[in-house]
Amino acid sequence: MTTDRSRTLRAREGVAVQLGAGERLKLVNLDGGQVVDMWAVNPADPDEQLSMEHTRTSLSKLVPAPGDHLYSSRRQPMLTLVQDTSPGVHDTLIAACDPERYRQLGGAADHPSCAENFRQALAAHQIRTERIPSPLNLFMNIPWQPDGRLEFHRSPARAGDQMTFAAVIDSIVVLSACPMDLNAINGSRLGDIGVEVLPA
Amino acid sequence: MTTDRSRTLRAREGVAVQLGAGERLKLVNLDGGQVVDMWAVNPADPDEQLSMEHTRTSLSKLVPAPGDHLYSSRRQPMLTLVQDTSPGVHDTLIAACDPERYRQLGGAADHPSCAENFRQALAAHQIRTERIPSPLNLFMNIPWQPDGRLEFHRSPARAGDQMTFAAVIDSIVVLSACPMDLNAINGSRLGDIGVEVLPA
Repeated sequence: MTTDRSRTLRAREGVAVQLGAGERLKLVNLDGGQVVDMWAVNPADPDEQLSMEHTRTSLSKLVPAPGDHLYSSRRQPMLTLVQDTSPGVHDTLIAACDPERYRQLGGAADHPSCAENFRQALAAHQIRTERIPSPLNLFMNIPWQPDGRLEFHRSPARAGDQMTFAAVIDSIVVLSACPMDLNAINGSRLGDIGVEVLPA
Repeated sequence: MTTDRSRTLRAREGVAVQLGAGERLKLVNLDGGQVVDMWAVNPADPDEQLSMEHTRTSLSKLVPAPGDHLYSSRRQPMLTLVQDTSPGVHDTLIAACDPERYRQLGGAADHPSCAENFRQALAAHQIRTERIPSPLNLFMNIPWQPDGRLEFHRSPARAGDQMTFAAVIDSIVVLSACPMDLNAINGSRLGDIGVEVLPA
């Protein structure tokens, strides 16, 4: 069922969801193993965007956990991670996939990508942005080693795992069910994501 | 001595250096312990900028080492890290300090910052950018723990330690001798940085 407040985000697709301050966004990993790239933009000031580098700096950690704020490029809390029933494996380090990424991996020139999903979803809100911000990669499994090496592993998210975020300020949240099928991150098949907006 | 090709970057200050493809940039930590925030912009296409998230993705590591390219937001090599006589401790995770950072740490409203140094240095090249890209923080000591915690430690760079970069494409490189004096990263005093452009 698709309504203003509840929808299924299909594999490979993107969507922008408008949240008022205090509203909550619940995401469900319907099939398990699916990575979701997430961004947020302040509609009153589109240059203020969710920022992974500012979030890492404010939290002094690589990955947010329940109770943590997610910070904007102006160092203000935009969202709060309220609940996470998944194993808590998420990523703030890796760039969104884009047409050049698929070209370099030997994919088709028109392969869907999180970056194009971001652009298209925001264009529907009359927001244009050249640079794709570094996303919060939900359910994405990029372990770091003591020597700084990064590995790309299959997501450990199970079917039915949920995350809930609360909007600290009015926000446009962009979600992309990551279309990556040329490395291991999404497991053996791409899945759908349940998206629900809950009242304040 | 300050010339077009050789200068001393004073503590707390920023500068933009134009490099032609093949030219090299040598930085010397003159006093030891001084962090340098570094960015690069393609003057022919200012939306193409050195990107920490694309560099981590392309290298599959948190911190570049000699021989590594540094990648742009279009996934193209912009610079190569040619030589590093320091302990090799650098950071790609932490946002540039800015007026809000100093305000949150209890500093003065007009405290110099890497973000303002970036803006002013690029404005001198008629390039304006609202969003401050995530910098490559040279000599900055932000160890990561197995659980993802990040710590802010004193730079281990010694007086005289050098790094050399080669430009893969024509680039404007912005450098800021980080003015942070409200945490440990620059040790007990701020220092100067030697900056020299070497021919191709």
